[in-house]
Order: sequence, then C-alpha cells, then structure tokens
Amino acid sequence: MSELRRDPVIGRWVIVDTDYPAAPQDFEKEEHQWRRGECPFCYGNEGLTPPEIEAIRQTSTSPNTSGWQVRVVPNKFPALQIEGDLNREGIGIYDMSNGIGAHEVVIETPYHYKDIGDLLNSEVENIIHMWCRRAFDLIKDKRFRYIMIFKNYGPSAGASLEHPHSQIIALPMVPKNVLEELKGAQRYFDYRERCIFCDMLRQEISEKERVILENKHFLAFCPYVSRFPFEVWILPKKHNPYFCHILPEEIPHLATILKDLLNKLKNLFGTPAYNFIIHTTPLDGWQIDAYHWHIEFMPKLTRVAGFEWGTGFYIVSTPPELAAQYFKKV
Amino acid sequence: MSELRRDPVIGRWVIVDTDYPAAPQDFEKEEHQWRRGECPFCYGNEGLTPPEIEAIRQTSTSPNTSGWQVRVVPNKFPALQIEGDLNREGIGIYDMSNGIGAHEVVIETPYHYKDIGDLLNSEVENIIHMWCRRAFDLIKDKRFRYIMIFKNYGPSAGASLEHPHSQIIALPMVPKNVLEELKGAQRYFDYRERCIFCDMLRQEISEKERVILENKHFLAFCPYVSRFPFEVWILPKKHNPYFCHILPEEIPHLATILKDLLNKLKNLFGTPAYNFIIHTTPLDGWQIDAYHWHIEFMPKLTRVAGFEWGTGFYIVSTPPELAAQYFKKV
Repeated sequence: MSELRRDPVIGRWVIVDTDYPAAPQDFEKEEHQWRRGECPFCYGNEGLTPPEIEAIRQTSTSPNTSGWQVRVVPNKFPALQIEGDLNREGIGIYDMSNGIGAHEVVIETPYHYKDIGDLLNSEVENIIHMWCRRAFDLIKDKRFRYIMIFKNYGPSAGASLEHPHSQIIALPMVPKNVLEELKGAQRYFDYRERCIFCDMLRQEISEKERVILENKHFLAFCPYVSRFPFEVWILPKKHNPYFCHILPEEIPHLATILKDLLNKLKNLFGTPAYNFIIHTTPLDGWQIDAYHWHIEFMPKLTRVAGFEWGTGFYIVSTPPELAAQYFKKV
Repeated sequence: MSELRRDPVIGRWVIVDTDYPAAPQDFEKEEHQWRRGECPFCYGNEGLTPPEIEAIRQTSTSPNTSGWQVRVVPNKFPALQIEGDLNREGIGIYDMSNGIGAHEVVIETPYHYKDIGDLLNSEVENIIHMWCRRAFDLIKDKRFRYIMIFKNYGPSAGASLEHPHSQIIALPMVPKNVLEELKGAQRYFDYRERCIFCDMLRQEISEKERVILENKHFLAFCPYVSRFPFEVWILPKKHNPYFCHILPEEIPHLATILKDLLNKLKNLFGTPAYNFIIHTTPLDGWQIDAYHWHIEFMPKLTRVAGFEWGTGFYIVSTPPELAAQYFKKV
C-alpha cells in the first residue's frame, strides 16, 4: 500500500508509491538539445549582455571583456525593474503594485558545456562567494524584503539559455511559500524551543537510510516528505538562519557536496534538467532561532499535473529511502 | 514596468509582464504525439480496464461491453487504495499514514480523438452528471474528507493516456491548497460578511475587460491574479459552496461554457495540453457561506521553473486583460 506523509514544517501531504516504486531507468530521458550559435554568456560575447555588475576575473582584465571566471550581469529581460517606487494600491477586491525589484544572472563559468559537477572545487567556491556577495549588496536596498537565489538547468527545468547560470531576484515582499515555511518553523520552535531543521538533521543522521552525502559541515539527504522523485536537501550542520552568513570554512564543504551530488545525478540520469533553490530567512523582522537555511534540489524527472496543482499533494513515484540507495550506489 | 498583483483569497503574489506581453504565437507549440495502438479506453477494449463502477450506456447493453457514452472505472494504478484503515502515526518529527482513498477514471467519450470541445452538448452534460454522481457516492464513505475532480489533457499536462478522461480522487484529509483557499475566503467573509467569489463575479462583470464568456448561470474570465498565461476561471453566478449541489438547470449552461472555452483555446493554440480542477468545499465541518465552487482551467503553455517553486510567486507573460482580448476575438 502507498504511504501518506506529512511535511512537519508546512503541513503538506505527499503520497509515496511504495508498491510500484520507480527506478532511475523508468523516467523518460529528455535529452538536452544544445543549441549551437552565439551564446551571450560565452567568452568573447561579453558585449551581448548588459554591463556586468560584478565579476571574479584575472586582475589584468577589464570589466566586460574575457578573463573572468564568474560574472554577474542584470537579466536582459528582468521580471522586475530596479528603478521606481512600489506605489501599492487596491483595485476593488484586488491589490497591486509596481514591479520593483532586482533580477541578476550569475554566469557560473566561461565554459558553455561544463556544469557545476565538471568544475574545479575552487571554481564552485567562487560561485558560492558570488551568491553571498550579491545577496549582501542587495540587502542594502531598503525596498527589498527577500533575496531569492536559484538555478534552472536544462530546458524542461525552465532554463531559456543553456550556458550554466544561476539567478538572483530581490523581491519587495516576502513570498507566500517562504512565509509558510517561516511560520511552520516558528510554530515548532514555540512548542519545542528547538529548531525543526536541527531536529531533522539529528533524525536523518541517526536513521541513516535517507542520507546520501555527509562532510564536516553539510548533510545531503532525500527528505522524508519529498515532493519529487530523487529530491535532495543540503543542510548546514550548524544552525544558521541566513545563507549569506555562511562561514568561510563552510564554503569549500558546500562546494564539494554540491559537486558530488551533481556527479551522482549525472551517473544516474545522464544530464537531467534540475532546479535548486536556496531557502533562507528574510532580511529582517524575523525571529532567527527558528529557521535554518538550506538548499532544496529537484531533478526534473516528472511533470506536475492537475492533482498536484489542485491540492498541493504530490505523488512521489520513488520513495526517498530507495532514491537514497540509488544515489549511494553510484 | 511589470505589475505585482496579489491574490485576494490566498495572498499569493504574481508578476504580470505588461512590458513585453506574450501573444498566442509566442508560446512553443508542443504537438501531441498521438500513440496508435491498443487504447484501454476505446470501444471494444472494456476488458483492459478494471471492472466499471458506473456508466451511462444504452439500456440494452451490459456493463463492461461497448455501448456506453461515459464510463467510470477504478484507476489501474491508483495513487491511493480503497481498502484498509489510515493508522496515522508519528516517526520522530515526521507523520505518516496508510495511503487510503479512492482513485477513479471518468472515460469521457468512446471517441479517442474527440475532446470535450468536439462532443455534443448532451454528451458533455452526461460527463458533468457523472462527476456529480461519483462525488455523491464517495461522500458516503466516512473515511474521506475531500473529493477532487480534475482533468489532465495532453502529455505535457501529465496525462499518461491520450484518450480524453478526467479523474476523481477521494482523500482522507483536506489538502493544504484547499485549506488555504477556504481559510482565505473565510477571513474575507469574517471581515465583510460577503463571499469573496460573489464579489469577484460582481467586479468582473462590471469591469468587463477580463470576461470571455457569459451565460445565464456561468461566467468565464481570465483571473486578475492569473498564475499562468491564458488561465481561465469558470464561476457559477449563484452562490453555492458544493460542486455536487449544482442545480439541474445549471448543468446545460456549464456544458456550453466548457465546450465554448475549449473551442476558443483550440482556435488560439491548436490542441494545447491543459489541466482543470474543480474547486469545492470539503464534505463537512466547514462554514458554507464563505466558499463558492468553481473551475480553474490552465492551458499548459509554459514550464514552471525554480523561482516559482521557491517562492509561490508566478511570472505571467500574458496579462489576463490581454489574454481575454485574444479569447474574445476567436
């Protein structure tokens, strides 16, 4: 019989198919269609993007030329615009405001065909450093309430360009999903006076069966209440609500675990599309004891259908315990 | 500049791209790959499904033979199982229970290549009658708290079989998304003593610009806070929390508006994949003044990416006002 499982943070239920669990080969492989042609994120094409905001580059080189390793540019088609005021207003029963915010692209490498798993450790560390630096810089703008760092890789994960890149969006309000997580974590803290994510770490380390990678500072595991087959969460072992307060000594360990995870995924599925999202506390006004930053990593192996849209229930065809076994084997 | 809009029921924000709005031809057309071969939902193949639960069929014909017009069978690979007890238990910080529920398939027509838009009005009315009858029947099982009726059409909307069919799932708990909607509607009712959906109807009818179809009993419009381009909601004009309490005289009007909507969609996009979900009040325990059943209809034109997963924010590339114009033109 299948199992119903309830997320302890936000109360979402999922259905885990323990009767006919799906193996990696059961998922349709969607081969990436690498488009040849002029890529605005490749060396030599720096003029095709808006002027760079920041870059990690060889000291002798000038902005907007080659010689960089990580490069941040404004999104050419931003979802939100940096200039202006919110001017929130009501229209009958509805509410609207101007689309103020920031939308930046972190070009993670000059190599069109190399993703995070193929880079040197030091190169991945530079990407993480850049995420932190941009988050710190955007915090200063008092109009912004939340900084979201995420990555879409592959067309079916919603990436419109194939060259590896992540994105940073600064939002003028705390998004609903983030609020729900914060409130759920706070409810647990109010009741137990402990961080729910710290408790989750303890339980996962002691039960072992869902853990796939562990190092000094991080744990990667398939969450008990996965929404997607082969979903993975990466949690820092030390309680810390803010991603951008990550300690310098933690960064190399995060780089290693991210690289190892992506290489495991490649061994299991070729080069599947994926999304990951850094979950962190908003910039201010939140009690910081209850929340614990982490990365939620979702390979794009299935399609979300009507049932999931309507209910917020998810049907997971591979139990996380089994997914962890596959991950550990490769 | 883009606009931020806030859903008045659940508080979700969306970003509406008013700068570079997408026209129907801007969406990638995903042609359906109709697989030939034995379809378990076609005439003559009744033996390939589990025995039928109920059918609307010619009086002279026997169950599980041809001669039906709408046929309901258990899902061959059910997400939930009808027999057993929930046995809810805690496992450390997590919660689980057995996967008890019902999962039925409504085969909407014997014609493999005809969708709702291609059927006779009376045939569509029969489908609606069948949804109601099954919901009424499943209500009787006291283990179930919510009946969800939905449809996935086309592979990219998550349909695994192409023969037109809808699905009914009976759940042992009220799903999170439904709860949020109920609570949001209740909050509005507590404050205003009016149903928010009735107010929405009044505002849409008076503003006109998002309305695409209207008849005696139903209104179809592109919601102000659409999550997806060309999203459409169909609301009954008369306040009624329960879908299965739909009045007999309303059914022909619902059939007409559904058919007309699907034909408009076909004119705009060929045969795009879509999902629709019937939103209704749970079976008991809820104050019924605040909620108003309706259908949320989502053509599958775009892919949901990391930003949407992480935030619950949606980026809508066609403002609903513009989508309504396109719908009205065809």
